[in-house]
Amino acid sequence: MTRTVTMAAATAGHAEGGSTLNAFDNALLAAGIGNINLIKVSSIIPPDVSIVELPKIKPGALIPTAYAAATSEVPGETVAAAVGYALPDDPAKAGVIMEFHGVGTREAAERAIEAMLDEAFRVRGETMREMRVVAVEHTVERIGCALAAVTLLAEEDLV
Amino acid sequence: MTRTVTMAAATAGHAEGGSTLNAFDNALLAAGIGNINLIKVSSIIPPDVSIVELPKIKPGALIPTAYAAATSEVPGETVAAAVGYALPDDPAKAGVIMEFHGVGTREAAERAIEAMLDEAFRVRGETMREMRVVAVEHTVERIGCALAAVTLLAEEDLV
Amino acid sequence: MTRTVTMAAATAGHAEGGSTLNAFDNALLAAGIGNINLIKVSSIIPPDVSIVELPKIKPGALIPTAYAAATSEVPGETVAAAVGYALPDDPAKAGVIMEFHGVGTREAAERAIEAMLDEAFRVRGETMREMRVVAVEHTVERIGCALAAVTLLAEEDLV
Repeated sequence: MTRTVTMAAATAGHAEGGSTLNAFDNALLAAGIGNINLIKVSSIIPPDVSIVELPKIKPGALIPTAYAAATSEVPGETVAAAVGYALPDDPAKAGVIMEFHGVGTREAAERAIEAMLDEAFRVRGETMREMRVVAVEHTVERIGCALAAVTLLAEEDLV
Repeated sequence: MTRTVTMAAATAGHAEGGSTLNAFDNALLAAGIGNINLIKVSSIIPPDVSIVELPKIKPGALIPTAYAAATSEVPGETVAAAVGYALPDDPAKAGVIMEFHGVGTREAAERAIEAMLDEAFRVRGETMREMRVVAVEHTVERIGCALAAVTLLAEEDLV
Repeated sequence: MTRTVTMAAATAGHAEGGSTLNAFDNALLAAGIGNINLIKVSSIIPPDVSIVELPKIKPGALIPTAYAAATSEVPGETVAAAVGYALPDDPAKAGVIMEFHGVGTREAAERAIEAMLDEAFRVRGETMREMRVVAVEHTVERIGCALAAVTLLAEEDLV
């Protein structure tokens, strides 16, 4: 794209909803990204990108995002979603994002992400400068969703 | 993206095909969007976007689109797909798009979309200026697909 | 998008991994596209696009890509992924990309793609100038992935 990604921000949220899509929408709102257009990407942080706290994004902006969502209609079930990123020692190299969703706890999702990032760096022959995992769990009342995301942002996306 | 979305257009189509992917491709052609590249988005109409009838789009253009497709290989089964959008009273706020696909009739898909849009506006604390649902059903002969979509268009996408 | 696609490049790869997502990541690396952001598209080659060998792409670039991936955790199982494209006689018309993934051999995947492209051209009333299928299979040891992709590239994506 002609868009220049200069920032990445991770976030997570969870919610109930009247349908699985509303639960997903409500989890996006809880995560602060419910009024933008997510474009799913797999899943690289470009070199020279700053990690930032989630900024205020223009409503309806088209935002490349690596995300994972776990929805369930089983009352009492706990679902979890996590994303994590790792940045290499060499700032000219790309970072890697991994996503996880499934039945289980936040801690299990975090461990899954860490193992995936470790492998991604091992196979690339890179050493990590920094790793961060953002995870969330949700115990379903009726219909619920756990959502975690890394947004890839350009200056023009911000309010 | 650096792209500026200024128009949104809803459409729907249904078709048989020799494979599920051909049925999907044929449903896209029936809907008038078979020769463009759909990029799936979830699912917001930016502020100040005009709702238009589906215009002629450049072949191969990369078009952010909220869509739902129901495919089936069960002869006699009826599947439906629907999209709907709702726009807020406050034109500076974003609109919301919801998608539905599944076994069932067009009417059931429409009702599902209406309920989802109602909830999306209730949780946002917005009141609706306008709501529209586009739905289609397909009764399968051999392999069929029902498809509904809202395309988000920029001036440069048009022929 | 404001991006101008001028090149398309097909590639494929397969790999084992410690998780299904790592197997997918490793298959992307094997295919030469492991350090970019894939944006899934369905699935058109714009007119006047050159078919090229996969060039060196900027790390983290956002690349519209038609792709298919088959992952399996069943040791001994053979999975296959394939993409194919067909270009029309009329260079002002768009080409079509089809994707396939599933349990089975590379040859079966290739035949499936050919049949899908034949149908796509028949329903469009176009005749083919050129067809190419890229397919790969993987026999699973523990967790494996077969991946095939057509990337849609602009000049600014290249190193």
